[in-house]
Amino acid sequence: MGSPAATTDERRYVLTLGCPDRPGIIAEITSFIADFGGSIMEAGYHSDEETGWFFTRQAIRASTVPFGVAELRERFGEVAGRLGSSSEWQVHDSGARRRAVLLVSKEGHCLHDLLGRAASGELPATIEAVIGNHLDLADMAEAHGVKFHHVPFPKDPAERGPAFEQVRALVDAHDPHAVVLARFMQVLPPELCDHWAGRAINIHHSFLPSFVGARPYHQAFARGVKLIGATCHYVTPELDAGPIIEQDVIRIDHADEVRDMVRQGRDIERVVLARGLRWHLEGRVLVHGRRTVVFS
Amino acid sequence: MGSPAATTDERRYVLTLGCPDRPGIIAEITSFIADFGGSIMEAGYHSDEETGWFFTRQAIRASTVPFGVAELRERFGEVAGRLGSSSEWQVHDSGARRRAVLLVSKEGHCLHDLLGRAASGELPATIEAVIGNHLDLADMAEAHGVKFHHVPFPKDPAERGPAFEQVRALVDAHDPHAVVLARFMQVLPPELCDHWAGRAINIHHSFLPSFVGARPYHQAFARGVKLIGATCHYVTPELDAGPIIEQDVIRIDHADEVRDMVRQGRDIERVVLARGLRWHLEGRVLVHGRRTVVFS
Amino acid sequence: MGSPAATTDERRYVLTLGCPDRPGIIAEITSFIADFGGSIMEAGYHSDEETGWFFTRQAIRASTVPFGVAELRERFGEVAGRLGSSSEWQVHDSGARRRAVLLVSKEGHCLHDLLGRAASGELPATIEAVIGNHLDLADMAEAHGVKFHHVPFPKDPAERGPAFEQVRALVDAHDPHAVVLARFMQVLPPELCDHWAGRAINIHHSFLPSFVGARPYHQAFARGVKLIGATCHYVTPELDAGPIIEQDVIRIDHADEVRDMVRQGRDIERVVLARGLRWHLEGRVLVHGRRTVVFS
Amino acid sequence: MGSPAATTDERRYVLTLGCPDRPGIIAEITSFIADFGGSIMEAGYHSDEETGWFFTRQAIRASTVPFGVAELRERFGEVAGRLGSSSEWQVHDSGARRRAVLLVSKEGHCLHDLLGRAASGELPATIEAVIGNHLDLADMAEAHGVKFHHVPFPKDPAERGPAFEQVRALVDAHDPHAVVLARFMQVLPPELCDHWAGRAINIHHSFLPSFVGARPYHQAFARGVKLIGATCHYVTPELDAGPIIEQDVIRIDHADEVRDMVRQGRDIERVVLARGLRWHLEGRVLVHGRRTVVFS
Repeated sequence: MGSPAATTDERRYVLTLGCPDRPGIIAEITSFIADFGGSIMEAGYHSDEETGWFFTRQAIRASTVPFGVAELRERFGEVAGRLGSSSEWQVHDSGARRRAVLLVSKEGHCLHDLLGRAASGELPATIEAVIGNHLDLADMAEAHGVKFHHVPFPKDPAERGPAFEQVRALVDAHDPHAVVLARFMQVLPPELCDHWAGRAINIHHSFLPSFVGARPYHQAFARGVKLIGATCHYVTPELDAGPIIEQDVIRIDHADEVRDMVRQGRDIERVVLARGLRWHLEGRVLVHGRRTVVFS
Repeated sequence: MGSPAATTDERRYVLTLGCPDRPGIIAEITSFIADFGGSIMEAGYHSDEETGWFFTRQAIRASTVPFGVAELRERFGEVAGRLGSSSEWQVHDSGARRRAVLLVSKEGHCLHDLLGRAASGELPATIEAVIGNHLDLADMAEAHGVKFHHVPFPKDPAERGPAFEQVRALVDAHDPHAVVLARFMQVLPPELCDHWAGRAINIHHSFLPSFVGARPYHQAFARGVKLIGATCHYVTPELDAGPIIEQDVIRIDHADEVRDMVRQGRDIERVVLARGLRWHLEGRVLVHGRRTVVFS
Repeated sequence: MGSPAATTDERRYVLTLGCPDRPGIIAEITSFIADFGGSIMEAGYHSDEETGWFFTRQAIRASTVPFGVAELRERFGEVAGRLGSSSEWQVHDSGARRRAVLLVSKEGHCLHDLLGRAASGELPATIEAVIGNHLDLADMAEAHGVKFHHVPFPKDPAERGPAFEQVRALVDAHDPHAVVLARFMQVLPPELCDHWAGRAINIHHSFLPSFVGARPYHQAFARGVKLIGATCHYVTPELDAGPIIEQDVIRIDHADEVRDMVRQGRDIERVVLARGLRWHLEGRVLVHGRRTVVFS
Repeated sequence: MGSPAATTDERRYVLTLGCPDRPGIIAEITSFIADFGGSIMEAGYHSDEETGWFFTRQAIRASTVPFGVAELRERFGEVAGRLGSSSEWQVHDSGARRRAVLLVSKEGHCLHDLLGRAASGELPATIEAVIGNHLDLADMAEAHGVKFHHVPFPKDPAERGPAFEQVRALVDAHDPHAVVLARFMQVLPPELCDHWAGRAINIHHSFLPSFVGARPYHQAFARGVKLIGATCHYVTPELDAGPIIEQDVIRIDHADEVRDMVRQGRDIERVVLARGLRWHLEGRVLVHGRRTVVFS
């Protein structure tokens, strides 16, 4: 056992599992780990009453596992198989470098924040590349030593296919664990949503499901809400409707014009995206239907 | 001048005004007050860039006004008139008792909270009566010394007209400054919304505009949001779409079932309603279109 | 497994344990439960790196335990014994009524709130009695059907011994699971702190460790803080220094005088106390030294 | 009038004033502005009941002032003089560039954040220079095009006089409006506190007055608090005791080790410092004794 939020550098193997719930699962999994002498640094469990589904995440001190990650994967796969043919499971190794690619447009606050976190080691991934449909943020990426690719997008949405193909190729060249839409402002075509399913992460500048789509701060102003928010979610073909990883809000008042919301909103967008992305990269997020289990 | 949030018992006359913006308004109003020697305990100003409208609230120490509230009203009306024929203004006297009537159903947490606040003097109003479409909360009201009226509602919405007529008569008998839907769970007919416009206040158990209508916690669960909220708003004919007075949220996680949301949500519903109602009663809320200016 | 925050009425046996950490503990405990076919509704684990101590809480569906709570207690005691002679463990039965006694003075907001929660079934305990050193809150307790005892306290602290003796006798007559200082405003003598150790719970109206002792809102005003807080903690002989169960804060600004802080602070005092007390009553709080583990 | 939080680029002259309170001040000031046709974009007022002191901030649309800032300063000085010989007042011109100098050590998150905000125009100042007692952050400053000065500090505090002299000279060369201790980790000598009084701003990584001095997260862990915080305050000779500009907190739990607090705390340190610094630079902060009035 250990801290759910620990960020020590000690290498760990992280097991995650979702399967149909029944008594004895925890005992089965923890006995499996105890049998080879594994020391559990963090453990999270959840059983969803409504769906009858069970979720767990176990972080095992790598130094206490007497075989390699491949064998651990094989053995854990057998355990998972016994727990149901529909089980979904993963084993990942914190010692293996994780990769992220960022898609951006003109607004640089999320990009700048993630570049800073990556540089200081706060983000458990390297930023492999930044792809922008405008050139505005090229200098920022490059000042942080990250390659910037410019892919201009035609005005007409109907003609954006080739641009998206180019983005896809640039992204896939890095086989990233996360494709981050860091205020990208373009709606991904359904086939890209599917292709990057479970890896494409967006930051939307509202407290979803309020204010889906364009210009959420304008919508918030018009509705006269007293709090504004930001939502980090997986991208799915339905716009701004993917499983939510993290959300937060900030208080505003009648004196805040749209431009004030834009400015203040940046502070939560940055933090919500960084938090959600870190959880994703550390294998803390399990998706089930439209909901997420986050072992933060 | 003085604290915007002061709740001293010292008697005050509160001027509120909304009018088209132009330079010199503040000088005009504050000179008007200074000319008769009025001491301003609190002052709030706001100019809405988008609509070009100006709003102010001035609380004047009553003991420094050398004439009665009727004359103050007359004089301030002249000032307001000079500021535009569309000006909306009010003068109210904190020394005059304010009255509230509460509409309830079966859930008692908001009722209990307001009864407690009224009893301890924390709510700047007396609760004149409680009207319920069920009998469940009769004892609670009466234990606090407040008259409870039972108005049963027929199952068929089409047949509720007479029940609403009875509610209207019971409410109007008190000529209340606030008609509070304290988890009333019934949609007011448009004519009652209009009749009580600017006085009927609802607490909705979601962060509007998310999850309008019935069973918002079920909707929130299904969507997998990470925060749940409550909204205090004026009632208008469009369901849950009236001007928002106050909102707040509380963090939940994947382990919270609907019943956990219901329980935790009560803590924000109580506070958000109490805060919004107090601001309304103290003349701190000015409505303009779909938005509110709250001089809290 | 099940929701950590579930408040279903389904009867459960709750095991809690603190012991020295080592690999295999979770497997040992969950195998113990699986062996008799127990279904785990909620599970919490924590291992404290600094102290090398392990903590767990397991809520088992009572209907899946094929023997009574006495036998479960005996069997779990054996497991706990094997995990170290210094282990601390408990088994409690959600079907057994829990009892609370409240100590109050003149401020009634926490009392009123807890009475309301108890009446609506939201608090997992009955309020057996209210004891006040003033008569102010007698009516409130009795309107909720709870016996009020008046124990006047002499002005001179040196002469309060007999009054505290009387309070002790009144409290102990109910053998309560919680002795709640609901804004009691009297410092308990060390022997009472020891006597009620782990059961006496206080609400302090500041964000401890800031503003220990008397008049914390005056201290907060003088220091010019921008947030005020409330802290629910176990009572220990050192004033306001016991293990913290829960804390929260609310934003204020320069316009808030002390009386505004007092009023706004009540809203967090109520909620923080209610939350902390509920967690205590549900066996969610494990104390280790000066810190608490809260499986909320 | 206009939004208190507006950050439009439209040039404005900002008047701030603190003086003994008496009736008629607002009328006097606003008439002064109305007389020359000035259009008020933002207005804030506060009267401190306890100290009998009045505070205001008025932002006037520069284009509506028929004379220059020098004459405005002269005229407003006369008004202020009439309001009391102890009045403190300022006039500043949003069109004049403001300058900040940053002092840093090894932790780069606040520096990186401020550099990003300055680059994107979000911070109403240019960062003239960064001074570090270590070389760690030189590259970060320079990648953002800002000059970095390295001033090594001797181990022995008694021998740091010359280093502080060098820092003083480097800072004063820019005559900055703000000297920002962005996790500088060195205690300024009293003479520097006095020399930069009202301009030196520190971010302390705790919710002051809790956990003054070194290693506040270690202190927070030891005390077992449930929220951690950050405080932006003016530097005064008494350590961590200067007037507070802004504070915020974030929730933690028993599973958070010190290193988790350090990581999560950065997110509030960044935001609290940025917010406090912006308010300072826009003339929104008026200091009175140990408290601040913040017209945010």
